[in-house]
Amino acid sequence: MTTVVMHNVVSVDGFIAGADDQVGPLFDWYGNGDVQLSEYAQVSKVSADYVRPTMARIGTLVVGRHVFDMTDGWGGVPPAGEHLVVVSHRPRPQGWHPDAPFHFVGGVEEAIAKAKELTGEDRDVGVAAGDVGGQAFALGLVDEVAMDVVPVVFGSGKRYFGSVDAQYLLEDPHTVIQGDRVLHLRYRVRKQP
Amino acid sequence: MTTVVMHNVVSVDGFIAGADDQVGPLFDWYGNGDVQLSEYAQVSKVSADYVRPTMARIGTLVVGRHVFDMTDGWGGVPPAGEHLVVVSHRPRPQGWHPDAPFHFVGGVEEAIAKAKELTGEDRDVGVAAGDVGGQAFALGLVDEVAMDVVPVVFGSGKRYFGSVDAQYLLEDPHTVIQGDRVLHLRYRVRKQP
Repeated sequence: MTTVVMHNVVSVDGFIAGADDQVGPLFDWYGNGDVQLSEYAQVSKVSADYVRPTMARIGTLVVGRHVFDMTDGWGGVPPAGEHLVVVSHRPRPQGWHPDAPFHFVGGVEEAIAKAKELTGEDRDVGVAAGDVGGQAFALGLVDEVAMDVVPVVFGSGKRYFGSVDAQYLLEDPHTVIQGDRVLHLRYRVRKQP
Repeated sequence: MTTVVMHNVVSVDGFIAGADDQVGPLFDWYGNGDVQLSEYAQVSKVSADYVRPTMARIGTLVVGRHVFDMTDGWGGVPPAGEHLVVVSHRPRPQGWHPDAPFHFVGGVEEAIAKAKELTGEDRDVGVAAGDVGGQAFALGLVDEVAMDVVPVVFGSGKRYFGSVDAQYLLEDPHTVIQGDRVLHLRYRVRKQP
């Protein structure tokens, strides 16, 4: 069965970036190790051993338009998986990498459905925490919450759970792995009875 | 040397209570085990083995007036340690447990100084996270941050770091202990060079 995993790097007080989108020390662990994980990441062995199989399970990523615009859609190549779904009221930019496996849909519910459709039964859907992830979470569409907790306090900024404003129970974390400047935690969402 | 430890139970998104002071499932782990820790807590063996020596090291607790009022000062008996310092612009209530080892001071800086003075060299000062803890943290008066992270999302409420609104680095956690409905984390604060 496809698992929908919400993910991001996060400060100990729940922020994924400053209000200005700066990630500051949150991304230090992506560059402080010996193992080349991707074009973007060279991490410790402990983190690589956790992240590599996690990334390999991702079939489709779901992100917001803001992330897409900031990264210029990673130049048309999904940073994980074979497909990428962008939640956006605006269409795909004209002329932008016409062959890139990017799909533009208008809402979060539709985006998760599209991502599941694009993803094989034995693979996962990854959802970027923040605005889009928080909406999916509040709709009950997220199965697991993956938090890479960095030992920094942010004080303010963009929240991991976006605009979520109600209580939700998670299970105890089934993954607790201490890396170098990051603590990898992964929780199943407790399903409402 | 006396270590100043900021502590509270906290949701995965950084809240220590709802806006209405309700802690909801944050305190479930205080009652879900076999080991009687105090009048208030019966926890799992894993949590007891962590909390008991931690509590025993506390010489003095520092809390805000709001907590004091909510608990009626624990009936005059500090829940840990031998002394308790209350940060408050208002004096000790008239006639309230005249012999209780409670000290009322006007500001956070003064409160930490008073707590250190009352605490033996080989014991710790505990500071309640939230408004008072956050102020002490921002003033650079906190040496360690202890977070008992409960697998629940709050969405909004009272923040562990209070009104802190700047970035601060912590060291990697030196304690990572998984209990039942709680993950005990403890970080040293990275001192500014």
